[in-house]
Amino acid sequence: MNYTIRKAGPKDMPQVLELIKELAAFEKEPDAVVITADDLVHDGFGPNPLFTCFVSEVNGAIQGMALVYYRYSTWKGRTVHLEDLVVRQEMRGTGLGSALYKKVIDYSRENGVKRTEWVVLDWNTPAIEFYQRSGATVLKDWHIVQMDEIAMNSYLKLR
Amino acid sequence: MNYTIRKAGPKDMPQVLELIKELAAFEKEPDAVVITADDLVHDGFGPNPLFTCFVSEVNGAIQGMALVYYRYSTWKGRTVHLEDLVVRQEMRGTGLGSALYKKVIDYSRENGVKRTEWVVLDWNTPAIEFYQRSGATVLKDWHIVQMDEIAMNSYLKLR
Repeated sequence: MNYTIRKAGPKDMPQVLELIKELAAFEKEPDAVVITADDLVHDGFGPNPLFTCFVSEVNGAIQGMALVYYRYSTWKGRTVHLEDLVVRQEMRGTGLGSALYKKVIDYSRENGVKRTEWVVLDWNTPAIEFYQRSGATVLKDWHIVQMDEIAMNSYLKLR
Repeated sequence: MNYTIRKAGPKDMPQVLELIKELAAFEKEPDAVVITADDLVHDGFGPNPLFTCFVSEVNGAIQGMALVYYRYSTWKGRTVHLEDLVVRQEMRGTGLGSALYKKVIDYSRENGVKRTEWVVLDWNTPAIEFYQRSGATVLKDWHIVQMDEIAMNSYLKLR
């Protein structure tokens, strides 16, 4: 299969948003996506972009994407976080996912970071096995903690 | 107890590094900190700062710190990540930790983000209970995945 991987531009954001929604549905949270394509354009392509996005194209159509941004480890310094890597359902198993994954690791190395990091759902065994085969480490002793807008407001009101 | 909380400046980084190392020791990874005070100055106080740090002072000495940066959720947009919150051992239980925690939530609200996020070790029950009492949600179905420099290099060599 012929595909190309390139950096996404503003005009790709509607298709990238479709992929974001496809991933949210796979992760059983189809209604969690409140972001719009305009938000993605604004946030990713202004003077201080909040992320970098790569897309994979087959015959001119976007069939996958990976979205990354920098984080900061107080142990290691600047790191790359892979927020989403999605391949359109019909195109899974074609190598597009691996190619995007490699692109992300390439990007990390080119930018000299000491770590690439992401998260995976504990029931997503195929993904976990893929990551482990590639040399990544799955940390099972950390929990993610989140406070959403409603919780933040009610916490601050009480204090 | 009288304390003040303020944004850290470059000259605070040596003391902030001490606190980072104290936290790493508590987390049973005392040798994981490869960053230096100079790195922190460079990374946090250049033209594109990679983090924002708050410190709590008691009688002119830094006794605690919280270090945050922005992340990007493809569901919610810009979020705040709390990377470290540390209070010097002798000062635990004095309210400094809660005050820094509130400062971080305040910062999130002031900056209009929809989420504050961090991680906790699964055996750190007092912290988990504190977070839950404050209204945060502990997600137990996600694993963190990391690829370090050595793993990235060896992955890229094979492909």
